[in-house]
Amino acid sequence: MMRAVVWDGQLRFMPDYPVPEIRPGWAGIRVKTAGICRTDLELINGYLGFSGVLGHEFVGMVESCEDIRWIGKRVAGEINAACGQCSWCRKGQGRHCPSRTTLGIDRLDGCMADSCILPIANLIEIPENISDDRAVFMEPLSAACEILEQLPLKGHERVVVLGDGRLGILCAWVLSTVVSDVTLVGHHPEKLALAAWNGVKTAYGDSNIDPGADVVVEATGSAGGFAEAMSLCRPQGVIVLKSTVALSEKVDLSPIVIHELTVLGSRCGRFWRGLTLMEQSPDMPLESMITDRFPIEQATDAFERSAQHTALKVLLDF
Amino acid sequence: MMRAVVWDGQLRFMPDYPVPEIRPGWAGIRVKTAGICRTDLELINGYLGFSGVLGHEFVGMVESCEDIRWIGKRVAGEINAACGQCSWCRKGQGRHCPSRTTLGIDRLDGCMADSCILPIANLIEIPENISDDRAVFMEPLSAACEILEQLPLKGHERVVVLGDGRLGILCAWVLSTVVSDVTLVGHHPEKLALAAWNGVKTAYGDSNIDPGADVVVEATGSAGGFAEAMSLCRPQGVIVLKSTVALSEKVDLSPIVIHELTVLGSRCGRFWRGLTLMEQSPDMPLESMITDRFPIEQATDAFERSAQHTALKVLLDF
Repeated sequence: MMRAVVWDGQLRFMPDYPVPEIRPGWAGIRVKTAGICRTDLELINGYLGFSGVLGHEFVGMVESCEDIRWIGKRVAGEINAACGQCSWCRKGQGRHCPSRTTLGIDRLDGCMADSCILPIANLIEIPENISDDRAVFMEPLSAACEILEQLPLKGHERVVVLGDGRLGILCAWVLSTVVSDVTLVGHHPEKLALAAWNGVKTAYGDSNIDPGADVVVEATGSAGGFAEAMSLCRPQGVIVLKSTVALSEKVDLSPIVIHELTVLGSRCGRFWRGLTLMEQSPDMPLESMITDRFPIEQATDAFERSAQHTALKVLLDF
Repeated sequence: MMRAVVWDGQLRFMPDYPVPEIRPGWAGIRVKTAGICRTDLELINGYLGFSGVLGHEFVGMVESCEDIRWIGKRVAGEINAACGQCSWCRKGQGRHCPSRTTLGIDRLDGCMADSCILPIANLIEIPENISDDRAVFMEPLSAACEILEQLPLKGHERVVVLGDGRLGILCAWVLSTVVSDVTLVGHHPEKLALAAWNGVKTAYGDSNIDPGADVVVEATGSAGGFAEAMSLCRPQGVIVLKSTVALSEKVDLSPIVIHELTVLGSRCGRFWRGLTLMEQSPDMPLESMITDRFPIEQATDAFERSAQHTALKVLLDF
């Protein structure tokens, strides 16, 4: 048995949850640290009807694997467990495999436990010079990097990122590595101060933002975010949607047609992208986003803290 | 004074509407034939709060113009009257000029009248071998062509067009000139029969359509269209939005993020595109879409007819 943070209609720490059984082609990982993500907060509000062990952001050590070269390696892991057979998987797009399960999100127990399992193909080894507290950002940083995969940027664009939460700040940082004019808009002075890395400009509220941005990234996770994005985007510009929450309210979407906007849905990213960026930008202040850490036994407190506006990344230690 | 079809909270034919005054750089056009578009039907339901002479699809003869070479020429005209000075206009994108007016749609009297005016720059001469009944399709055909401007298609994509109305059929025809696998989905057998040109496949309802289309064009003009488009589009595929009506209902847009869809708003097109296509595809059965024609004096009857499901293009003759 093992320790685990479980959601089954109720959020609780369990000291005696069954250890997951390893499958052929999969690895068992002893989790060192896990992060709480906004998606976790949505899941315990009923999103996707998930039930099981939560968590999809982690760093850990491989403890069991049919390929013994992995044993003892420090790893992060991509979260979509794909079939490996379908046309999506064959072109390396397992993230869209129709029969995928997803770590701590969809029919696969997650990483907020002493052990979790993932396909070997999902693992990425963490180099020695990257600390656990940086490596635990691999999943959200790679999700931010997905924008660069989807959207060819030339560097001279004016980019506005809406939302000074965890994902918004990471998106601003990632975009600042290829575009010089990036503004992060938020409502939390202390988060905005932290976000001002690599030339990222910050703005308290959008009242001082010139409309007509080439690219607007919606990362508020709030209902008004999409309308705000449409009002700030130039005709024929691009709105990148990084969160589903902003779409839950009725919004007049006619500006999409009138201004011929492109709306680009953006979800998980490949970890090699995130790892490459971590190596190329050792000064990116990822660790500064860690506002709190809790032992796994206090997971319910950690979730409560994570939902507060003053929290950024909240970690669970094992 | 002139004959005109006016909307000012009430739709009516007026025999004595003031003739529009020509402006520097503009031309006066004697209208021969005008088409009724779904946008006209939306305008008389309050869309955009328009008031004035309706109409933006026409063919006519230039009767007054400071550049006398235009006088007597048979023309169609792009509908956005732009300032010609701003950064959008300078790059040839007057369609997005923030101070534009729009023929029969936004602060500019339209073409359902004996005369209308437009900037000279908006005119396109109709070659002799293109009849009035074809040329009157220049505006909607060019709007369909806009998809080709926005979306680089390789030809091997599977495309589904939702909606067997005027615009849906035109989109299917335009797309069939560059893509071999185009299916038009509708609910009107007689319209579907008419649409089967150039290899366009047709389907009654979407129950027999395989999901996973590369491109889905939403041209239903109905509230359920967008949800239907999302359900038929493959992950990382493209949904082209050609109508604003489909966006008026609350829709769960989370599939955009989960499946990383691209949603592309698409509006007016450049007329040289439509004209080129008319010249290259003389067998495109545009005229077969004309189900009815009325003299201008019977415009209210014509509008009523145009709103019926059995109507496709309804023309007003002068």
